[in-house]
Amino acid sequence: MDPLLFTPGPTNVPYRVLKAMAKPMITHRGATFRSLYSSVEDKIKQLLDTENEVFLLTASGTGGVEAAIANLVKKGTKVIVPIFGTFSERIANAVKTYGGEVITRKYKEGTGPVKEDIAALIDEHLNAEILFIVYNDTSPGVMLKDIDQICKIAKDNGLITIVDGISIVGGAPVHVDAWNIDVFIGATQKCLGTPPGLSFISVSREVLEKSKNINTIYFSFELFKKFAEKRETPFTPAIPLFYALDEALKIILSEIGYKRWLELHERRAEALYKSLEVMNFIPFVHENFRSVVVISTSGHPSLECPALKSELEKKYAINISGGLGELKNKIIRVGNMGFLTWRDILTLIAAIAEILLEHGIEEDVSKALGIIGNYAAKTPIPWDG
Amino acid sequence: MDPLLFTPGPTNVPYRVLKAMAKPMITHRGATFRSLYSSVEDKIKQLLDTENEVFLLTASGTGGVEAAIANLVKKGTKVIVPIFGTFSERIANAVKTYGGEVITRKYKEGTGPVKEDIAALIDEHLNAEILFIVYNDTSPGVMLKDIDQICKIAKDNGLITIVDGISIVGGAPVHVDAWNIDVFIGATQKCLGTPPGLSFISVSREVLEKSKNINTIYFSFELFKKFAEKRETPFTPAIPLFYALDEALKIILSEIGYKRWLELHERRAEALYKSLEVMNFIPFVHENFRSVVVISTSGHPSLECPALKSELEKKYAINISGGLGELKNKIIRVGNMGFLTWRDILTLIAAIAEILLEHGIEEDVSKALGIIGNYAAKTPIPWDG
Repeated sequence: MDPLLFTPGPTNVPYRVLKAMAKPMITHRGATFRSLYSSVEDKIKQLLDTENEVFLLTASGTGGVEAAIANLVKKGTKVIVPIFGTFSERIANAVKTYGGEVITRKYKEGTGPVKEDIAALIDEHLNAEILFIVYNDTSPGVMLKDIDQICKIAKDNGLITIVDGISIVGGAPVHVDAWNIDVFIGATQKCLGTPPGLSFISVSREVLEKSKNINTIYFSFELFKKFAEKRETPFTPAIPLFYALDEALKIILSEIGYKRWLELHERRAEALYKSLEVMNFIPFVHENFRSVVVISTSGHPSLECPALKSELEKKYAINISGGLGELKNKIIRVGNMGFLTWRDILTLIAAIAEILLEHGIEEDVSKALGIIGNYAAKTPIPWDG
Repeated sequence: MDPLLFTPGPTNVPYRVLKAMAKPMITHRGATFRSLYSSVEDKIKQLLDTENEVFLLTASGTGGVEAAIANLVKKGTKVIVPIFGTFSERIANAVKTYGGEVITRKYKEGTGPVKEDIAALIDEHLNAEILFIVYNDTSPGVMLKDIDQICKIAKDNGLITIVDGISIVGGAPVHVDAWNIDVFIGATQKCLGTPPGLSFISVSREVLEKSKNINTIYFSFELFKKFAEKRETPFTPAIPLFYALDEALKIILSEIGYKRWLELHERRAEALYKSLEVMNFIPFVHENFRSVVVISTSGHPSLECPALKSELEKKYAINISGGLGELKNKIIRVGNMGFLTWRDILTLIAAIAEILLEHGIEEDVSKALGIIGNYAAKTPIPWDG
């Protein structure tokens, strides 16, 4: 049985996007690749709403994060990294690996920083040089809804702003230039419904100036900039993934329309939160921080999270995720990313309801399904396949 | 017109391998991926003839080279890097980027080191810790035919041996264990006829012990080792490329047979060298160093290299390569990698002959084509598509 993915990445990839990869191989030093490169670059700039340089890295998201750090963090560089999940914690570790000094605060499980917290952190550490923050930490399902203001405060205080937007780009608005984001990192396998293996990174002019003579070659912004001028990558790129990303972005930006695509993510999130609540699943995240793209719940009071997860997989090949690290068996996470349809959402809710029933737990299934139905009627899915 | 690639990577990918990528997406933390991972890992170990750990990196070849350096080179680490082309030069630079001290000698254009040279270098630098050497530097088309003995000498002298075999793995024998290679780096897009975007690296136990607390997370051997135990990668892998590599290796190792596959590379190389010589192309590389996988020539005495390259592309969508760096307009390079057929070789020779004729240069075309024909009759291509 083919899997139905509700994991927070990789996500389901439409056959049309998969098929786009199966093109005869081309050289990465020729006109065909350069035109493919331009096409992807233009679309990513549109997606990020930026006029900054955008580089396409043959590496998954963590590679993109490492690129940002390798280009900007030297021994002793002071970096503010607010910690509110596994991915923000990983960034703090990566900064240390490169010799940086991490200034951090840990936030209560299921919450994250608001702009006042960041302002206070900056005030306490006037020598901080960089703010590196995760827009949406998928591990608890926490999304920072005032990321724009957080970045503004950092920028106003002279910090370089780096945003890890890997899990959310394409699923919620991003305005790199208006939001004062010097470096924004995204990846293909989350809300863009493209296979994993590529990440992209936008880099401001200020950062390009600062990131010379650094400690990496494979991720060197300087080299990427040099080759971007001729619409090439410094090293052999994952060509099939460029084709796939180009196709997915064409569907999202030109055929569906980006605004409508974002709205679908919002409506699906509402439908998921509501229908899960009707079935007595307890939201894990404080309401101010609930993510649009990862619905995180403490599970059902009468059924262990790991049991639900494994039965969904075994019986129906539906993949949801458990928690990471300390949250391993304590939460379940439902990804709401990319090309999910109302039929997929309905299927998930029905499958969860069926497994609850199997365990003798009766919830108001009709009401839960009805919620999905109403959303499906109001916001139809605009793509084929 | 679809391109016919004679570039030294990326190379033509059979439709069957391209198609293998177009599979429904799966999670990288589930049983299906683990079984795919095992399947690829087993085949790579077979290919490299090793019982060492093999890690699969979502990064192209240069990322693999950077991984080796990031895990082993610290400030002051003394590394012998013989330079005989762009790729060996890049390694020297990468070692310096990581703070290493490079011990090097440059070899005359179109030649490289033999075992006596390496022995002498080691004797002169008894404090050297690592030998990092390119098996086949595609930029001049130089292949080190006594790489096995070179590595033995280094190992006997207590050095760690790192071999960049990116451009040659699958095109010529590699015996990692018998040849005393601590770290071997390969990639998908050369002689394995798979799209670019993945590299693989075998790592000896000795090196695994030494590469702890190092300066990278994305390329950390320690993390790769930890996840390899459960047949996973530490970070999201380029899943479609795993499918493609698995399919290509299945064809190469099980259907064609690895011995026969290697023999085909040899026979095609002979046919290319001979037929090009008949048409008065001058080999660029000293005969002791001529590569099986990149046929490098100084071109035809009566036609500029760049003209031949661009006319082949414009008229027939056949891609060959020019030189890199100082050799830019001085040589042409014909890749002999992966799934090339006798028809492809015949087509290339015919197209070159036609372009020569167009320029009023008459060579013995019949003889050149006859050479290919003889080889084709003796060593038939054993795959479909």
